[in-house]
Amino acid sequence: MQNEKVAVIGLGSMGMGVAQSLLRAGFVVMGCDLNSQALARLAQAGGHPVSQPSDIERDCGVVVSVVVNAAQTEEVLFGVHGVAERLQAGALVIGCSTVPPAFAQQTAARLAAKGLLYLDAPISGGAVKAAEGALSIMASGSAAAFAKAETVLAAMSERLYTIGEHPGQGSSMKMINQLLAGVHIAAASEAMALAVKIGLDPQMVYDVIVHSAGMSWMFENRVPRILAGQYEPHSAVNIFVKDLGIVLDAANHAQFPVPLAAMAQQLFTMAASLGMGAWDDAAVVKVYEKLSDITLPASA
Amino acid sequence: MQNEKVAVIGLGSMGMGVAQSLLRAGFVVMGCDLNSQALARLAQAGGHPVSQPSDIERDCGVVVSVVVNAAQTEEVLFGVHGVAERLQAGALVIGCSTVPPAFAQQTAARLAAKGLLYLDAPISGGAVKAAEGALSIMASGSAAAFAKAETVLAAMSERLYTIGEHPGQGSSMKMINQLLAGVHIAAASEAMALAVKIGLDPQMVYDVIVHSAGMSWMFENRVPRILAGQYEPHSAVNIFVKDLGIVLDAANHAQFPVPLAAMAQQLFTMAASLGMGAWDDAAVVKVYEKLSDITLPASA
Repeated sequence: MQNEKVAVIGLGSMGMGVAQSLLRAGFVVMGCDLNSQALARLAQAGGHPVSQPSDIERDCGVVVSVVVNAAQTEEVLFGVHGVAERLQAGALVIGCSTVPPAFAQQTAARLAAKGLLYLDAPISGGAVKAAEGALSIMASGSAAAFAKAETVLAAMSERLYTIGEHPGQGSSMKMINQLLAGVHIAAASEAMALAVKIGLDPQMVYDVIVHSAGMSWMFENRVPRILAGQYEPHSAVNIFVKDLGIVLDAANHAQFPVPLAAMAQQLFTMAASLGMGAWDDAAVVKVYEKLSDITLPASA
Repeated sequence: MQNEKVAVIGLGSMGMGVAQSLLRAGFVVMGCDLNSQALARLAQAGGHPVSQPSDIERDCGVVVSVVVNAAQTEEVLFGVHGVAERLQAGALVIGCSTVPPAFAQQTAARLAAKGLLYLDAPISGGAVKAAEGALSIMASGSAAAFAKAETVLAAMSERLYTIGEHPGQGSSMKMINQLLAGVHIAAASEAMALAVKIGLDPQMVYDVIVHSAGMSWMFENRVPRILAGQYEPHSAVNIFVKDLGIVLDAANHAQFPVPLAAMAQQLFTMAASLGMGAWDDAAVVKVYEKLSDITLPASA
């Protein structure tokens, strides 16, 4: 049991799971979110809700940021009510959002100028693993940042990958994972849509492909949602519009071609354009339905 | 032990494995290939080499065609030295090549007109599984064709998927698998190339991704070849130029969009255009190297 003070900023499905895991491990957990229901859930679980990031207790040693994107990360750290001014020298910020590698680098430098540590630590695994303290973390940062993060990361994760000593490397690895994940979801959708078009039974396609060379983690995980016709969001279309956008920006900055990622990003953008941005990312298959005469399985 | 006569046409890495599996199961196996070394290997294993498909013994009950594509299948069945004229009524042809679904349908009809059975039975699993008699088979055809094929399929395969009763359905399922497999190989290449460009250690990327949501069967299987810089063909670039071409033709015929498959097919075509058509399909990663300043791992 740690009895150390940790703040979790962002209590969505991932952040709430992180907060619960930290509470189970014995940390004193402050939590912050715009959503008052999330704050009530945190209080019920034994945490201490605060209404602004800057309202955390001054002697909080570690802040875990689990917000949606780089813009929100910037706001919670350096905005009018940001934590960066509140923390004492030597405190650590763990950045868990999927952000551009260059943003992670800049954030580390800005925090260092205030005497604060930063660990670039994107997470993977989904809400269930977050709640179980079983996330995968792809982390990079200084030895001091890793040392101060150790007990917090242990409470959050099942797998901790030490990618390197420079902030940005963790985000680079996450970006490569998201390139593949995004292309694979879109490819699973394209394959299932074509299968329906040519008259194959979609359930049989699933059963064959999961045992064949065409298998991907995303095919196995997302296609059951297509088969059930259920698109309540586990992870939303808009997340992949953003994450593949990060891939495209970074590749463009490096003047490097990523034609498959670019095509996949367009497919997620088409789904968002159809009004499905907040639907589950498997709803990218609906783009193919909208463009053709196929009928995908409907929710029972 | 069967003591039945079976002919295997096409003794490449897949066909030779099929022939060996049939010999182990006790069949009398005739084999045919243009390559005299392959014929010698078959003889050494206990099989009976023939120099033309039409030279197989007249009372051969089952012919397994394991040639490269539809054109070769047509030639071995209906060409000047084809088997179709040689076989007795009621004999069975098992078509294992990846061919357009419409070709499988037409082939079945042409054979039926001669009193012959056809099983549309594309295979998957690679040379090692072929040699072990542990292939996956995605088969469709009449109950009579399945019944006559039963012992032969059992000797060849670990998993037999009965896709339907109409020739073409097996090839349709294989086509969906190849769409995914081809996109996944190209995506694995794109991801590894970008990872090298942005300075990540490629071995570390592999180790992280195989345990992450970006994983695919093809990523796990092909990326070690990229890491070793070894592109001796297990399955060649040209196979995916062909197989994704089948996907595009079928989708075009159905007036159905497959943008990811189309982009992947272009990437394999670029690799072929660079002179790497006979290299391993993982050499599609070399397209990204050719287009940029990255240096991929070289063979030790």
